[in-house]
Amino acid sequence: MRTIRIAVAGLGVVGSETVRLLQAGREALSRRAGARLELAAVCGRRVASVARRLGLPASVRRLTDPRRLPAMPGLDAVVELLGGLGAPRRLVLDCLRRGRHVVTANKRLLSHSWDELRRAQEKGGGRLHFEASVAGGIPILRALDLSLAGDRIESVYGILNGTTNFILTRMAEGAEPGASLRRAQELGLAEADPTLDLNGQDTADKVSVLASLVTGAWLRPGQVRIQGINDIAPEDISFAENELGRRVKLLGVIRFLSQESREPRIEAFVSPALVPLKHPLAAVQDEFNAVLVQAASAGDLMFYGKGAGAGPAASAVLGDILSLARELASGACAPAPRTGPHHRLADSACAFYLRLAALDRPGVLSAVTAALGRLGISIASINQPGGRDPKNVPIIITTHPTDPGTFGSAVRDILALPSISRRHTVMRLLP
Amino acid sequence: MRTIRIAVAGLGVVGSETVRLLQAGREALSRRAGARLELAAVCGRRVASVARRLGLPASVRRLTDPRRLPAMPGLDAVVELLGGLGAPRRLVLDCLRRGRHVVTANKRLLSHSWDELRRAQEKGGGRLHFEASVAGGIPILRALDLSLAGDRIESVYGILNGTTNFILTRMAEGAEPGASLRRAQELGLAEADPTLDLNGQDTADKVSVLASLVTGAWLRPGQVRIQGINDIAPEDISFAENELGRRVKLLGVIRFLSQESREPRIEAFVSPALVPLKHPLAAVQDEFNAVLVQAASAGDLMFYGKGAGAGPAASAVLGDILSLARELASGACAPAPRTGPHHRLADSACAFYLRLAALDRPGVLSAVTAALGRLGISIASINQPGGRDPKNVPIIITTHPTDPGTFGSAVRDILALPSISRRHTVMRLLP
Repeated sequence: MRTIRIAVAGLGVVGSETVRLLQAGREALSRRAGARLELAAVCGRRVASVARRLGLPASVRRLTDPRRLPAMPGLDAVVELLGGLGAPRRLVLDCLRRGRHVVTANKRLLSHSWDELRRAQEKGGGRLHFEASVAGGIPILRALDLSLAGDRIESVYGILNGTTNFILTRMAEGAEPGASLRRAQELGLAEADPTLDLNGQDTADKVSVLASLVTGAWLRPGQVRIQGINDIAPEDISFAENELGRRVKLLGVIRFLSQESREPRIEAFVSPALVPLKHPLAAVQDEFNAVLVQAASAGDLMFYGKGAGAGPAASAVLGDILSLARELASGACAPAPRTGPHHRLADSACAFYLRLAALDRPGVLSAVTAALGRLGISIASINQPGGRDPKNVPIIITTHPTDPGTFGSAVRDILALPSISRRHTVMRLLP
Repeated sequence: MRTIRIAVAGLGVVGSETVRLLQAGREALSRRAGARLELAAVCGRRVASVARRLGLPASVRRLTDPRRLPAMPGLDAVVELLGGLGAPRRLVLDCLRRGRHVVTANKRLLSHSWDELRRAQEKGGGRLHFEASVAGGIPILRALDLSLAGDRIESVYGILNGTTNFILTRMAEGAEPGASLRRAQELGLAEADPTLDLNGQDTADKVSVLASLVTGAWLRPGQVRIQGINDIAPEDISFAENELGRRVKLLGVIRFLSQESREPRIEAFVSPALVPLKHPLAAVQDEFNAVLVQAASAGDLMFYGKGAGAGPAASAVLGDILSLARELASGACAPAPRTGPHHRLADSACAFYLRLAALDRPGVLSAVTAALGRLGISIASINQPGGRDPKNVPIIITTHPTDPGTFGSAVRDILALPSISRRHTVMRLLP
């Protein structure tokens, strides 16, 4: 039986949980892998105390500098759980170029360096596994890459950020945004600095990984239209539930508009979306993640589970280690990542929700509706809930499906009106 | 680029859809597989008309006798979609023993011949792929076998039969069982003979496949406690919704009670179950399937999608073909199926629902409660909804968690009482 020697770099919560599970389950894992799995080295700033706490045997090498791993003799695979971007990028590229396999959970690294990582795999022969990088314990990447590879994927709608889903769930129960965030932080569901969660960037990184995996062509996070939940107020959520029968979710969306041609067209955005209450994504509450995949033959598929936390991430990392170990044991090497033709980004029509704050002056409503009408945007509903403050009268508009760019122009025109405040909320309506 | 030559045996709805997708998507599939996929032969009773309808080129051989496939020269893999048990078993075993790979959607074959199929793979070197056999287009088997292989699976709760879920959904909306079944048949969701769906046998076959895959030891369908939906009446469903806040679902359940020991204990049953309305499985309506997996590290995961139909099944079959083609292209061979130690079947305590029909005589209720009390079964609630017919007074009892065997004895005692009709309904309550 072949021995597969693994190093784990990064001993934070995910890293030390991975090490713990790998040690505790080594025999069972080896049976499943058809190869002897051996933890050869651990690497982290506080390696001595972590090794002591986990009771690691002396045979496991302790390192503090991950730069020693790519050249360490006898190693088959490195698990990169360092966090950050610079050190992981150097470590992973160096490993792949030397033909060493890597498992990572680092979505920022993947979304920002997709092509570089692909080239390093092609050149060096090392292979990168990254199931844990999107939606934590939910095996969505393997489903898209393997199980649905024979199908035609039409769209992916994901609740991909547990922090914002937790906040939106609490807000739907009446809590204030600030208190909801603090509760998420107390529970360890949100980082001390939640900026990238709230502004949608974290979700965009995951959209980038999903789209790049499905098409084989790198979708840069900067190509994704991004809107976060910073502008969402409690009144948006209650209006959505009570008047529209919808729930607010921060969605990462990819629509594969045409895959047949030489230059496939895709749409990719992150946006708060109003989801019908009966839609399966509406039932995804708290810190849970879910991914709805629409495939031409399989129809609608939904994958649901915990998107973050040490357990779910370590579970996905172990799945990757097992899958890699099976390949090595069978003498195979996973194919190098595919390269697809570069896609052209496109928009498709969507219905929108717009909440404005206006001065209570005659003619405001007609100026707003005129700005929409000028650009050919058709209004589905308009509401002016009883506001007590004449300097801050809410106007809530929903539109019929319209081009997102045109809608954006109309919103800019409206915000330039003298009686309209700059503060506003835009959301999309899911069909 | 290596060429992988495939034959499809069985040209019913799934078989001909698989052939159609394979031909239409051949180039894209070949790019993803890293190997040239070639449809070498099709085999079925009406092969000529199917080949004509699909416009197959003359290079694709037409056969009517599947027994010619195992020895046909130059073939790499056979897709078995014949239906039935005898002919598929002969075909698949013969292929595997000759080192030929097989993709099948035949859950009955798998559940009834698991060990024989495993031995044929070990001996001959052919490998069996069967993602489509359970929950159609939902990639649950690959998730359990690969993605969660590093985790410890604690339980699997599945809505695995679309026909019965459709009928239960319609009944919850007020339709009669017979009319619901006829509607399912009109929509092509139920077979002309739905016996194996209604009595739970189809779900038990899928439970057998899931449990055998997870543990590596064959769980025979005959070892699964089976109860179908034949006894469920509209009043059970409305009582559940209105009085208990629960929905009736036919579940296939596997609980891995202890995996560590040399003789692991598992519990496996098929039963109508009362699921709390907020439970993710309660939202699975119509012909949809879903599988809830509870894993030690990943937590609760749910997979949701269409469990039947030509598209979902063909999608899963193509995923298996792709996965097989990638292995062949990389020069590897999937590991032979694992063999785990044989498990001991065990029961665990469960709360039950029991509806009886009684004669309106003094002392009936006390005789019933005495029968439960004698066996130490504690009653959680007892209801006697206003029945107009004194010969058929409903008594609805829910219990606290109790041993299923003891509960079964108590039910037998109760049904032997002179004032109690033999007609009754038993369901389990999901925690």
